[in-house]
Amino acid sequence: MNNFTFQNTTKIIFGKDTEGQVGHELKKHGKRVLLVYGGGSIKKTGLYDKIVKSLNDNDIYHTELYGVVPNPRVSLVREGIKLCRNEKIDFILAVGGGSVIDTAKGIAIGVPYDGDVWDFYDGSVQIETALPIGVVLTIPAAGSEASSSSVLTNEDGWYKLGTGSDLIRPKFAILNPELTYTLPPYQTANGASDIMAHVMERYFTNTKDVDFTDRLCEATLKTVISNVPTAIAEPDNYAARAEIMWAGTIAHNDLLGTGRDQDWASHNIEHELSAIYDVAHGAGLAVIFPAWMKYVYKHNVDRFAQFAVRVFNVDYDFNNPDKTALEGIERLKQFFTSIGLPITLEQLGIEDNRFEEMADKCTNGGKMELGGLVKLNKEDIIEIYKLAKK
Amino acid sequence: MNNFTFQNTTKIIFGKDTEGQVGHELKKHGKRVLLVYGGGSIKKTGLYDKIVKSLNDNDIYHTELYGVVPNPRVSLVREGIKLCRNEKIDFILAVGGGSVIDTAKGIAIGVPYDGDVWDFYDGSVQIETALPIGVVLTIPAAGSEASSSSVLTNEDGWYKLGTGSDLIRPKFAILNPELTYTLPPYQTANGASDIMAHVMERYFTNTKDVDFTDRLCEATLKTVISNVPTAIAEPDNYAARAEIMWAGTIAHNDLLGTGRDQDWASHNIEHELSAIYDVAHGAGLAVIFPAWMKYVYKHNVDRFAQFAVRVFNVDYDFNNPDKTALEGIERLKQFFTSIGLPITLEQLGIEDNRFEEMADKCTNGGKMELGGLVKLNKEDIIEIYKLAKK
Repeated sequence: MNNFTFQNTTKIIFGKDTEGQVGHELKKHGKRVLLVYGGGSIKKTGLYDKIVKSLNDNDIYHTELYGVVPNPRVSLVREGIKLCRNEKIDFILAVGGGSVIDTAKGIAIGVPYDGDVWDFYDGSVQIETALPIGVVLTIPAAGSEASSSSVLTNEDGWYKLGTGSDLIRPKFAILNPELTYTLPPYQTANGASDIMAHVMERYFTNTKDVDFTDRLCEATLKTVISNVPTAIAEPDNYAARAEIMWAGTIAHNDLLGTGRDQDWASHNIEHELSAIYDVAHGAGLAVIFPAWMKYVYKHNVDRFAQFAVRVFNVDYDFNNPDKTALEGIERLKQFFTSIGLPITLEQLGIEDNRFEEMADKCTNGGKMELGGLVKLNKEDIIEIYKLAKK
Repeated sequence: MNNFTFQNTTKIIFGKDTEGQVGHELKKHGKRVLLVYGGGSIKKTGLYDKIVKSLNDNDIYHTELYGVVPNPRVSLVREGIKLCRNEKIDFILAVGGGSVIDTAKGIAIGVPYDGDVWDFYDGSVQIETALPIGVVLTIPAAGSEASSSSVLTNEDGWYKLGTGSDLIRPKFAILNPELTYTLPPYQTANGASDIMAHVMERYFTNTKDVDFTDRLCEATLKTVISNVPTAIAEPDNYAARAEIMWAGTIAHNDLLGTGRDQDWASHNIEHELSAIYDVAHGAGLAVIFPAWMKYVYKHNVDRFAQFAVRVFNVDYDFNNPDKTALEGIERLKQFFTSIGLPITLEQLGIEDNRFEEMADKCTNGGKMELGGLVKLNKEDIIEIYKLAKK
């Protein structure tokens, strides 16, 4: 186990009807709020009205920024920064999923910064201060509601990059599983894939002696695997929605990664897909993760066999651990298929003519290697795209 | 799953040589420190010198209170409160295990309070303010390093009672597994029993639809069960000590109890043992918990069978779930025995002549019932003591 520091200060307010608490909770931190959201769905469901009422009831001024899209754009973040400065905003409230939250985080760090906010994402500047953020979560997936990271897409070159700091961890996150009843099956499945990927990026490690966090990771994966089919079959099954929502937060709040090196190659390899082809992040991960596993499993067959046995109840083959490991990857693909996700680039309609370009981008022109478990260079990444083809 | 609020702000600094960071971390919160510890063991091991050096290096004034004993006494807390007032102390640093931390918490709430500190423990007053606390942990067991609770013993009548508030959650906790190398096997085993009991008090619930936290609980129990025998056989096995230490914190930092009713009868039934006979809390729990399980398991055989199957790998007997449940209790007893713990009152040298008195005390003269899973009255508790006899 590695040395580590762990602190997650986000206050989680979880359960039925909790969104009405937003104003009461928010006034501890701010008085002039930017409300950030996506499209009109929160207006259709009535969530928008509830939130505005709670803000008004607590004498909180608000203005709005909407139109956040999946793979959220830095251009909208820049717009939000201007708006905050003009309106003297002191708190950002994100109502939505990961894209909305990541947009809010971008605005929060951009407001007090003189330069362009993309500087934080391309790594040229570190976060030193930020406006406080709060969240009302409507899509369990990204884990951004209690995480210290934000990922944005820059339309100028279609780069998708992330930044992070404890300073952008939300002050509070309101999680009402009922708000996820309206998520269509495909989006529910995308969320599941994203949650599982957050766990697996931490699970596949070279760090020895990590029993406890291994088991916590397995517990989280098993929870998602057993509850997502129910949530897809019965969209208003509170129990299943609640399990997925809480698992989604814990998957990415840093607990599961304590004391272990992490991988994150698959996330980076997927980022190129969603940046160029604008595919849903979860769907992209469902394609890339199994391909990555197949490419690297021989590096540590025992770990991939443990995944197969403990997460997917594969019988351990004592004479052939490789077979056990491969069977685990197969079961993961079967699971993704069973919940309606693609597992090949072909299913996403993506051809093989830009593998070189994507691999080049995510290795910064071949100068960087990716991944904590196995270091992957540009050629390795092209091979992984090829494995993901069909 | 129940609605819940979860926030744990304690900063965990985990790993080798981390105790040297104490002064640097502490100076963010205070300048005049009361250092609280037990006997001379921290002087023998050199830990005391390291801590004093780190405080001095960071220009932090300190004074000391020592002599904390297991089942810590309110009398020493009162002494500490006086000392803090005289010395204008603004931060309490606990160096030790649960007893030392709970003493520090008692002092932290007593200093700004006009009345007697026991008022918080007998429930007549709520905590409204407290001095900040920090911890350097030397005994993984109580989980007090990141918890919101404190348990003290009042020599006047030998009452053992607890209080709680987010205000007494430590600002930071430094966890270096190396500091636990000197724990003798019996104390290591006591710690294991205490950690497991913290999980099991949360695990045995009537709340439906708690898959995720069930699995997190099982993960924590399995980690303790698999690592404690190693730590006993090889006291300086870093990996095993580290797993136990991190599991001990998570077992009691409130995460595992999110969204579920909890039980806590066994803790209360045990408190009477340790208050009257001054037995180690962990040893008392190893005796009481299996007896409690036997007494209540028929209330929810499925849950006790799940415990047996998932925690102790018992084969589920589809024709006889009761047998499965009972086998789980048997395996728990075997585990406790294997690590040198008592499982009967007889082994603790406790006779049956004060069962009535103890049951009377923990039900407040027969007026209260105990337990979230099954409500237990005074007569039930006497029966549990009888089941624990031999």
